[in-house]
Amino acid sequence: MPPNQYDVLGIGNAIVDVIATCEDDFLVGESIEKGGMTLIDEGRAKQLYAAMGPALEASGGSVANSMAGIASFGGNPAFIGKVHADQLGEVFIHDMRAVGVACDVMGADRGPATARSLILVTPDAQRSMNTFLGIAGLLEPDDVDADLVERSTLLFCEGYLWDVESAKKAIRFAMQTAIDAGNRVALSLSDTFCVDRHHAEFRELVAGPVDTLFANRAELLRLYETDHVEEAFELLGADVALGCVTMGTLGSMLIDNGKQIKIPAYEVGRVIDTTGAGDQYAAGVLYGLSQGMSLDRCGRLGSLAAAEVISHVGPRPMSPLERLRIEDAKVDPRSWVKD
Amino acid sequence: MPPNQYDVLGIGNAIVDVIATCEDDFLVGESIEKGGMTLIDEGRAKQLYAAMGPALEASGGSVANSMAGIASFGGNPAFIGKVHADQLGEVFIHDMRAVGVACDVMGADRGPATARSLILVTPDAQRSMNTFLGIAGLLEPDDVDADLVERSTLLFCEGYLWDVESAKKAIRFAMQTAIDAGNRVALSLSDTFCVDRHHAEFRELVAGPVDTLFANRAELLRLYETDHVEEAFELLGADVALGCVTMGTLGSMLIDNGKQIKIPAYEVGRVIDTTGAGDQYAAGVLYGLSQGMSLDRCGRLGSLAAAEVISHVGPRPMSPLERLRIEDAKVDPRSWVKD
Repeated sequence: MPPNQYDVLGIGNAIVDVIATCEDDFLVGESIEKGGMTLIDEGRAKQLYAAMGPALEASGGSVANSMAGIASFGGNPAFIGKVHADQLGEVFIHDMRAVGVACDVMGADRGPATARSLILVTPDAQRSMNTFLGIAGLLEPDDVDADLVERSTLLFCEGYLWDVESAKKAIRFAMQTAIDAGNRVALSLSDTFCVDRHHAEFRELVAGPVDTLFANRAELLRLYETDHVEEAFELLGADVALGCVTMGTLGSMLIDNGKQIKIPAYEVGRVIDTTGAGDQYAAGVLYGLSQGMSLDRCGRLGSLAAAEVISHVGPRPMSPLERLRIEDAKVDPRSWVKD
Repeated sequence: MPPNQYDVLGIGNAIVDVIATCEDDFLVGESIEKGGMTLIDEGRAKQLYAAMGPALEASGGSVANSMAGIASFGGNPAFIGKVHADQLGEVFIHDMRAVGVACDVMGADRGPATARSLILVTPDAQRSMNTFLGIAGLLEPDDVDADLVERSTLLFCEGYLWDVESAKKAIRFAMQTAIDAGNRVALSLSDTFCVDRHHAEFRELVAGPVDTLFANRAELLRLYETDHVEEAFELLGADVALGCVTMGTLGSMLIDNGKQIKIPAYEVGRVIDTTGAGDQYAAGVLYGLSQGMSLDRCGRLGSLAAAEVISHVGPRPMSPLERLRIEDAKVDPRSWVKD
């Protein structure tokens, strides 16, 4: 069998982020749940956009951000998602290809506009996302190129896709295709509210097709309905081969077949915008896995990428992660060898 | 006569910036004149966009940036320019209104797309701009609301508009209307290549309707065809009531009816992207003028705004300039009084 063509194939919502700063009062006035992701319709998107301050636009989408991060590390990722043939769709596709993600996505001529997430960043650098899914929410099994899934060593999907029935079917199809081809299947839990909405199905996924899970501490506790993180780690270890749990400034914990590996966070001068932190952590870990690095090193690359992205506005790396990775390897040669 | 409604009315190209970093080699390979602004057609825009790296989108346009800066200082500016009723047009209008610029611009249903400037930022933080003018280049006298010009204490126009015949007519009409109403007329020379293209007309404008000129050192030397900056200052002093000449890290020089006032630059930790530095300098000076501050203080506000904008990616302030101004006044109470 020929070697796989791509390290990682990401399937996720293709979104352009519209990023503005605001005071906490604004979130209260607009009844926005701080730190979460809220799905909004086009009317609410217009109203909220009119109320918010001047913004920057940057390509986003959770798994799409991770694929951009993997490419920035020097990896070879691919992406499936849906955009409209409008200006923001063009921006999304450009930014994926420009960083080196194989993105064979064609903007659709009809249907809703390209997805936008109105992201409000408060002075504590926390981001609150308000997403109008647009055409991204129309992902369906036909959009999944089975051949592409088979040719990618690892499949990575986002929990956010569970909010749309047809997207769910698309992901289940992709996961089965990956498993049949002997490939790995990874999932991100995406968001605590998302976990609450799809709790039973996420439990079934981690007990079933998913072998690698990404979650933050709060999402993990919701998944296993416990307040005790050690209990959650144990349950996670029984469910998946690799659990990757981020814990903000405390770093992260990798659960390798039940064995805990603690990964420190990197120091960041000033945290500007936490958008994309989890996505870039996943990018580092997945890149490391795809290169056969030790889990310790994989986690360190995750921390490295997360530290880069929270030090500026925008959900994707602005410095080439490959350069940071090479510089970092000089500091930490210990595990800079393939297992 | 009722007091004027707006401090400053800006007329300029309504542009969305598409900002990517690149190495110097990329500029050489693409034959891009470093540090300048090159007008490009739609075909070249597509080709260059495909070749450049992942980008951020941010509302731009020289005079539009200055109006956003004045609003951020707490002033009351207005803007005239042209956009299409497309997604980037919507972004441009939103960002103007959201920061507090009166922008009664309606996106056109037909004609070319909203203008884009593909901006390449090299590791030295220098920006090279490649502008597809689109519908912004169709500005004509009918777009200038004479009543709005009359109701604005100061009119501010950009030299870039001289590249388009109908826009030139629009600006001449606006300048005459402002003068007839007893208002001030300011011009930015915009760019050295722009000065070379329109040398004779710019000389005629500064000798004629323009009473306040913004230029950087290089543009000023080109305007007066000399290598001696002192000679240029003298000629400028004879032409305009107020000359404002930026000199990068050396600060700036205000020429007040021939008298020189030296303004220091602010220290900036790390210069990230010089896009918008001149525009924000003009914003600070114009805001100060509109508030009747001393010229010394006007220049200092210009330096303050320029320092803010070069410390991050994007051509407009990300921190409210009003807050920085108030903090700065505590450090420098000397001239923090109205003349």
